[in-house]
Formats: sequence, C-alpha cells, structure tokens
Amino acid sequence: MEREQQLEAWVQQITALDEAAQKAAANHLDDLTKPPGSLGKLEELTIRLAGITGKKKPAFSRKAVIVMASDHGVVEEGVSSFPAEVTQQMVHNFLAGGAAVNVLARHAGAEVICVDIGVNGEPDHPDLVSRSVRKGTANMAKGPAMSREEALQAILTGIDVVQESVKKGTQLFVTGEMGIGNTTPSAAVTSVLTGVSVQEATGKGTGLDQAGVQHKANVIARAIELNQPDPNDPIDVLAKVGGLDIAGLAGVIIGSAALKCPVVIDGYISTAAALVASRIAPACRNYMIASHTSEERGHVALLQTLDLSPMLQVGMRLGEGTGGVLCLHLIEAAGRIMDEMATFSSAGISSNHEMSEAEL
Amino acid sequence: MEREQQLEAWVQQITALDEAAQKAAANHLDDLTKPPGSLGKLEELTIRLAGITGKKKPAFSRKAVIVMASDHGVVEEGVSSFPAEVTQQMVHNFLAGGAAVNVLARHAGAEVICVDIGVNGEPDHPDLVSRSVRKGTANMAKGPAMSREEALQAILTGIDVVQESVKKGTQLFVTGEMGIGNTTPSAAVTSVLTGVSVQEATGKGTGLDQAGVQHKANVIARAIELNQPDPNDPIDVLAKVGGLDIAGLAGVIIGSAALKCPVVIDGYISTAAALVASRIAPACRNYMIASHTSEERGHVALLQTLDLSPMLQVGMRLGEGTGGVLCLHLIEAAGRIMDEMATFSSAGISSNHEMSEAEL
Repeated sequence: MEREQQLEAWVQQITALDEAAQKAAANHLDDLTKPPGSLGKLEELTIRLAGITGKKKPAFSRKAVIVMASDHGVVEEGVSSFPAEVTQQMVHNFLAGGAAVNVLARHAGAEVICVDIGVNGEPDHPDLVSRSVRKGTANMAKGPAMSREEALQAILTGIDVVQESVKKGTQLFVTGEMGIGNTTPSAAVTSVLTGVSVQEATGKGTGLDQAGVQHKANVIARAIELNQPDPNDPIDVLAKVGGLDIAGLAGVIIGSAALKCPVVIDGYISTAAALVASRIAPACRNYMIASHTSEERGHVALLQTLDLSPMLQVGMRLGEGTGGVLCLHLIEAAGRIMDEMATFSSAGISSNHEMSEAEL
Repeated sequence: MEREQQLEAWVQQITALDEAAQKAAANHLDDLTKPPGSLGKLEELTIRLAGITGKKKPAFSRKAVIVMASDHGVVEEGVSSFPAEVTQQMVHNFLAGGAAVNVLARHAGAEVICVDIGVNGEPDHPDLVSRSVRKGTANMAKGPAMSREEALQAILTGIDVVQESVKKGTQLFVTGEMGIGNTTPSAAVTSVLTGVSVQEATGKGTGLDQAGVQHKANVIARAIELNQPDPNDPIDVLAKVGGLDIAGLAGVIIGSAALKCPVVIDGYISTAAALVASRIAPACRNYMIASHTSEERGHVALLQTLDLSPMLQVGMRLGEGTGGVLCLHLIEAAGRIMDEMATFSSAGISSNHEMSEAEL
C-alpha cells in the first residue's frame, strides 16, 4: 500500500487553475489590436497557461520532452511490423541525437530526456536515465502485462523524473515514448477506458497491413478477455493490459500537474497515458495541452473522451514525442503575442468596442 | 489588351514540379529512422518543396509575408464590425511592427512587406510599398467593384512585388492582407467560383452577430445579381465582386509559381485569391502550401475546391497572413528532418524492410 499512498499524495497536490491569472491574461488579449477571440486556440492556450502557472505572461525558457522507453511482451504475438530489438536500437539513436524527436526538439529548443523504464536489453549511455522497472512487460495475451506494484512503480518513476527535472529549472514538459508494439497496449487501454470497441481502437501502428491490423485486434480482444481489467480502476487496467511506457507517462502527466507545469500530450500512446492519468487524478486534465491528431485509429476517441482539441493536423503517426515538440512553437508564439503586440490605445486604432459605443 | 498579354506571359512561365527532385527527396525520407510515411504531411511537404525548387534539400533562408492592403466600397453597406478607417490605421501598425502578423513573422524569421494596393487614405511610411491602383473599390452592391483593367493592374502589381523581392533573395512567400470588409468580396468570389451558395460562403468576419451575417449575405447576393460576374472568367469575377487586396494576392501567387518559389496560403481572403490564381493559371496550384483552416465560414469549401489540406487547426480568423507565418515553422522542421535525421544504416537499426526481406 505504500506506493498507492505516495501516488495519492501527489494526486492531492494538484489544484484547480488560477482564475485571477486567467482573467488577467484574457483582459490583456482583448486589448490587443485584433478582433476579440480572432487568434482562436492561441488565445485559449494563453489563458490556460496563465491559469496553470499563476502568471499573466508565463515564460518557458526550459522545456523537456521525456521519452519513456520500454518493451512489450505481446510483440511475440506478431503485432508489430518492426522487431522488438528496435526499441533498444532507437534508445541509442535518441542518445546519439539522430531520431526525429531529437531533430524536432533541437528545433524547438527542448531537451530530450530518455528514460529506460523497461527496455528488454542493456541500453547504456551516460545520458540515459536508467530507471528500469522490469525488462519489458509479459505477454498480455497470456496473462497480466505486469503486477499492480510494478504499474505503481512505473507511475511514480514518471513523477520522479519530472520532479528531478523541475529542480533543474524545467518549466514545461512534453510526453514521448519508444516501445516496439506499444500501440497494442494503448489500444487495449483505450478500449477498456473509453468503451469503444477493440476494432475502433486498433490501428496499423508502424505499418501493418489490413490482415495485420485484424490479427492485432484479435490479440487485444483476447488479452482483455483473459485478464478482465476493471474499467473503474485505471491502475488495474495499466497492470493487466498496459505498458511500462504508458504507466511512466501517466506519471509524467500527474507529476507535471502537481508541480504546476503544462504538459504537452503527443499522439496515441501519450494520449492513452493522459486518459489513465485523468482517471487517477481528474484535476490534471487542465494541465494538458493537446498537440496533434495522430493517424493512428482510436486517437480521436481518446481526444474526445478527454475533451482535448489538438492544434496540428499533420497526419503523423511516429510517436517519440514528435508531434508534441512540433507544437512547442505555438506555445512560444502565444507568449510572444502577449509580450509584443500593440494595444488599440497604443497604436491609435479604432476598436469595434468604440464603434459600438458611438452607435449607442 | 497589353496587360492581359503581360499576365499571360507570366502564366506561361509556370512549369510542372520537378519529378526527379521529388523522387530524390522521397527516397531520402524512406531511408530515415522512422516507419515509412510516419511523418505524414511533413513528408508530403518535403517532397513538394523539392519539386518546386528542383532541389532535394531546399533551404529558405529568406522568407517574406506580403500584406496587400486595400479598402472596399461595400463597407458603406454596413458589412463589417470595424470602421473603414481601421485599414489605414492597421497599415501604420504593420509598419510600426505592432500587429499580430509582425510578432508572428519575427518569430518565424520572415520579413513583412506591406503594400498599399488601394487604401482609401494617404498612408505614409518609408517602408510602405506604395502601389495604389485606386483609393479603394467602388461599392459592389451598386455596380462593379473596379474595372477589368484595374483588376489586371492589381494582379500584375502582386507579381511585380514578388519579382522585386526575389531579386533581393527571397525564396518563399506568405500571403497576407488587410482591408476592412474584405471577407465580403471574398465570400462573393467564393460563391461565384466554387458554386456554393452565398449563405454557405458568408461568415462573421471580424465579429458580426447572426443578423449582421444575414445582412452581409443579402448584400453579397445583391452584388452578384446586379453585376452578373462570369464564373468562367476569373478576372471578370475579381473586377465585378472582388477586391484590390484579393487581386494583388492572386498576383503574388502567380508570381511565386512563375519564379519557382513556394507560396504559403493564409486564411479565407488568401484562399479566395488562391482559387482565382488557379483559375487563371491551373499550374500554380502545386506551388501553394495550405497553412491553417480559418474559422470563417466558406474557407473549407475553398480548400476542398483547391484540394488543399492545411496543417494547423487553430481556429484563427484574423487574416494579415498570421496563419501563414505560423506555419513556416513546419516548413523549417521538415527541412531539418531531411538534414539532421539518422538513416537506418548510419544508426545500425533494423528496418521493417530488412525484416520483410528476412522473411522471404
């Protein structure tokens, strides 16, 4: 029970957003030389960032994408078009700076924190955060993916990684992951927690054909049937049909919310983790920034359940946090709008408010 | 007829995209450490930029947003929630660097070129490009907005501004505009050229209420009924129910395509100009990069007619080129992916191609 209590203490720390800061940001936005509300989601984003941080004009000079890497025993059922060894190979690629998330994170001025939370191998690099809970999950088609204690440990690991990074000055997080096969547990978690059918939650992952997707859906249905995860107990769902990467990211999201940092949610796997996090701690929903809509089937169901509306529609399905870091530019743009735009009075421009007054 | 011939000479200069460069870019993308196609529209974009420029890895170190500013006689019918004088006031705001497009262009590293193509006033600033065709259009609800010669002159002005900027080294353009009332001629052009009803093409612009939108639609329907623009003659449509800003932007798009520069299309007014440009010169369609989907009603019909699929869904309805410059980040990101990502062989990663081969 000790880990359950530790997690509960973090959950209790998450507060509602700061209403005064939100109001101050909204008032400033309405003063800028543009029709009220005309910057759409950039304005909503600005107001939410104020609410999260308690500052009218927050700055995020230090940003990090946390890439949770782990393996999935279910890969032995033939659910991925890439072999399992690629998880560890990609971890080395992240640490060498050559993966897509590295390129896009450099472009966005964000640090990449690569965490081994359960790779089935011996990844080794001075920059690797080695926090392995176990060497990959068990095959969920034959039994639970992991124990409840391991799921809790993975969540607490995610919180811990956030806490350490906040101590070093990070103010904003992006969720990322690497794990060959991880759209399979994501689809299982999505189906159990949202209620959509396994079929609707199952996509082609890294590139399955139609027969491959059908086989994957059958494997997922079998795993759910066998393990009987309790939809009202998100930790039970994680343990039985989830993954260490998903659990770690749920922790990243809860930790970010507890420490008043916005957390940008990447694609399908990350959003499955976000739904788990919001079922454990409903208050963390308002700390989430949706980045992009993934091509992976089932992502839209997750976004709708969380009532999140992403800003990018780029048809990506790569994961790693790539969509999340790509969206950081929009957060920066929103900040510059607040800092640099002229107001109606400073620019000597007739507002429609004035016109309305004149017409009275 | 002289202007018609000048325009025709530019149209003839537009070529199909370079297939060899597109193929080279596509091959490189498939070599990078990611599932093939998993970067979605970023990959399509990369391939198209190669085709436009003829280079596998083009660079766009100098970018400009061209803001065409003009007034609209139809504003006297009460179709906008802002007074007409705001056009000139906003021109001064652009030149002082305080408008939303200035902030977002600075963020994107793009220059703002502000063109007076028909402001009803005397805007004055050393950086203003003064190319006024006439001091605003006439009220299209009472007669044609302008003459055919004026529409042609405005198009050629847009081409000319692009040509001058290319001489200074600009490699990529964004369309922008400012003109109180300009969603009204845009809706008229959209309805006539796409065939959607005036109702479906008419939105709230800078912030009309429901009654205001209905009044605006009535004014547009009256203008079309009175002027009888020929849907098969895009210049006739521009002259009778268009605007100088829209005509100038059609020229910017034709000029960009003729000079092999990608042109990022902003929101509703810009996309109306893009449709006019593609009706004058169908080959320029492939030089267009769609940036965002505007909140303005009718934008989706334009995008569908042009078969363009924007990357940003930020609910913006500000114009000026703001959505366009916000999208430049994605073009830069696509370029960095090509330059910086590791390949399967360089990173020692098993590709699914190799696996497929092994399985043979």
